[in-house]
Amino acid sequence: MSETQPDHVPAALDLTLDGPALTAALVDFPSISGTEKPLADAIEEALRALPHLRVDRHGNNVVARTDLGRPERVVLAGHIDTVPIADNVPSRLDEEGVLWGCGTSDMKSGVAVQLRIAATVPAPNRDLTFVFYDNEEVAAHLNGLGHVAEAHPDWLAGDFAILLEPSDGEVEGGCQGTLRVKLRLTGERAHSARSWMGSNAVHAAAPILAKLAAYQPRRPVIDGLEYHEGLNAVGIEGGVATNVIPDACVVTVNYRYAPDRSMAEAEAHVREVFADCGVAEITVDDHTGGALPGLSHPAAAAFMAAVGGAAKPKFGWTDVSRFSALGVPAVNYGPGEPLLAHKRDERVAVERITHCERRLYDWLTA
Amino acid sequence: MSETQPDHVPAALDLTLDGPALTAALVDFPSISGTEKPLADAIEEALRALPHLRVDRHGNNVVARTDLGRPERVVLAGHIDTVPIADNVPSRLDEEGVLWGCGTSDMKSGVAVQLRIAATVPAPNRDLTFVFYDNEEVAAHLNGLGHVAEAHPDWLAGDFAILLEPSDGEVEGGCQGTLRVKLRLTGERAHSARSWMGSNAVHAAAPILAKLAAYQPRRPVIDGLEYHEGLNAVGIEGGVATNVIPDACVVTVNYRYAPDRSMAEAEAHVREVFADCGVAEITVDDHTGGALPGLSHPAAAAFMAAVGGAAKPKFGWTDVSRFSALGVPAVNYGPGEPLLAHKRDERVAVERITHCERRLYDWLTA
Repeated sequence: MSETQPDHVPAALDLTLDGPALTAALVDFPSISGTEKPLADAIEEALRALPHLRVDRHGNNVVARTDLGRPERVVLAGHIDTVPIADNVPSRLDEEGVLWGCGTSDMKSGVAVQLRIAATVPAPNRDLTFVFYDNEEVAAHLNGLGHVAEAHPDWLAGDFAILLEPSDGEVEGGCQGTLRVKLRLTGERAHSARSWMGSNAVHAAAPILAKLAAYQPRRPVIDGLEYHEGLNAVGIEGGVATNVIPDACVVTVNYRYAPDRSMAEAEAHVREVFADCGVAEITVDDHTGGALPGLSHPAAAAFMAAVGGAAKPKFGWTDVSRFSALGVPAVNYGPGEPLLAHKRDERVAVERITHCERRLYDWLTA
Repeated sequence: MSETQPDHVPAALDLTLDGPALTAALVDFPSISGTEKPLADAIEEALRALPHLRVDRHGNNVVARTDLGRPERVVLAGHIDTVPIADNVPSRLDEEGVLWGCGTSDMKSGVAVQLRIAATVPAPNRDLTFVFYDNEEVAAHLNGLGHVAEAHPDWLAGDFAILLEPSDGEVEGGCQGTLRVKLRLTGERAHSARSWMGSNAVHAAAPILAKLAAYQPRRPVIDGLEYHEGLNAVGIEGGVATNVIPDACVVTVNYRYAPDRSMAEAEAHVREVFADCGVAEITVDDHTGGALPGLSHPAAAAFMAAVGGAAKPKFGWTDVSRFSALGVPAVNYGPGEPLLAHKRDERVAVERITHCERRLYDWLTA
């Protein structure tokens, strides 16, 4: 597996290529997280050549906007980085119309659709904002969309946002929040031959595991989408030596919660669930809030009508949550296949790319 | 901390030294587990100089016996190895009559008492067997007493055995058995955002921990000694990644049981306790049986009367179990202080050594 960037990278992007060909060009333009600058340069240069767009840049994040005074503004966003290449670049188009390579699904096919709409819809029926950002595949604090949201929240303003993340051509609304806590139990060490001299911290985890095993997760319906929560131990660790009564045990619990619950409510819920379990300390290890689907917004409803099909809830956490935090309802809708993301045999059917571009084109030019 | 053997070691042992001085000489004769040969040679040589003893050797284990045709035979046994030296050799006698150094308590003071009795009681009222063995402080399969028991069980025959292990000058009868099992729970992995697609193996440990927390250990009285069992988790481990439902969890349980229970009974008990807990697999990780105190034997009763005080049950496992397996009741009785064993500041009060030797001398010459 090669994780290095080729020495030679293409210099320019040709936005007159069709969606599949542009996807192939983007895949052949490596941009592993942390090395996105050449691709960001090429995207900026290609967009600056389009007179109907205002182009701004923050780091390796590029934002381009129409300013036609339309009553609504729609944001089309996508990350330009990929996971490390796994001997799957350059791209390869097979005889059945499937394009293979790193980033074909996650998400250079989506980026290609963004660029095609930018190039071919100079006078959209809604004002458009195109966001291309870096470092989505790595630690959250590096995420370019987060950096833009913090430095220039006005660049991301809009009535509705679409992330062109792989969603198999279906609309995925909102996303669930995820809270990870560590529950620490304490005891007192003793030789296991004289266990009554100590206090067993692993035994003290019994009520926590019993609560988890019996927990009934909520399945609230929001904007017609049924979410599905979960409260689970994702790890447990305790023990000093095979002849010692352990004085510490830590249960790591992950709460995935529906977006009708705020971050504060989620934390309060977890603390309440384990309130009577004798936990010595609860610490929040990680927490990112959910995002409401916002499908009741007129722009979202029009979008749903245009692309067809029924929206599905998004259970995992995605960057739509960052738009939600800015007050912009957001969905995932992209040509990639989520189950193929990050795989060595990542691929996308070119028909999906063309279909996705066509649906957006029709909606924005109707 | 130096764990190496000094290049120069003393060549001979002088059994005319008193108990404390002989203890100091033994401490200054390093014999970390695995390096006992020079000390075993010196002990063998010193004992061969005593015409009332028959001396046998197996590896670095030395056995010396009287053969006076007495109606009873008593075994005095001790290991000659120590844990690694921790900058605490050579020995040092302080102004308050405390001898400091590696092995002072565990158990060169006991070995000194054995050697003193061997040298000063040529015509004991009971036939005597002295056993000096190696590798007690390391893995059980290396233990010299075990090797002698297997190769020459007749060398260890007797009516009663005393191990001169550190017991603070009190008699500790028998020992509890120790069984360690691993209880394996299984489940099915899934992304924690879609936990209902999997099955959580950590949650499946809930009934095991509940059983352990509620377990009421037996405290049977045997030969007047109250034992105290214990069933404890000494470790728990589960977890794949912070966003994955774990498919495996292992609870390591240690059962310490009184010597009225056989090894088979102990295993059956543990399997019965966890029978309805949905355990996928129970494996025995380690198991050594207990030893009955045997204090009702006439030789043991006479010994108790001679040394005075009340015997205490031994909760931890010791080599008395090896004698028990050969049908020889055994106790621990030695001058060392068990809580100081293996410590950098290991030490022994010389008065204890003299006292222990005197008690044994009086009993064996009465």
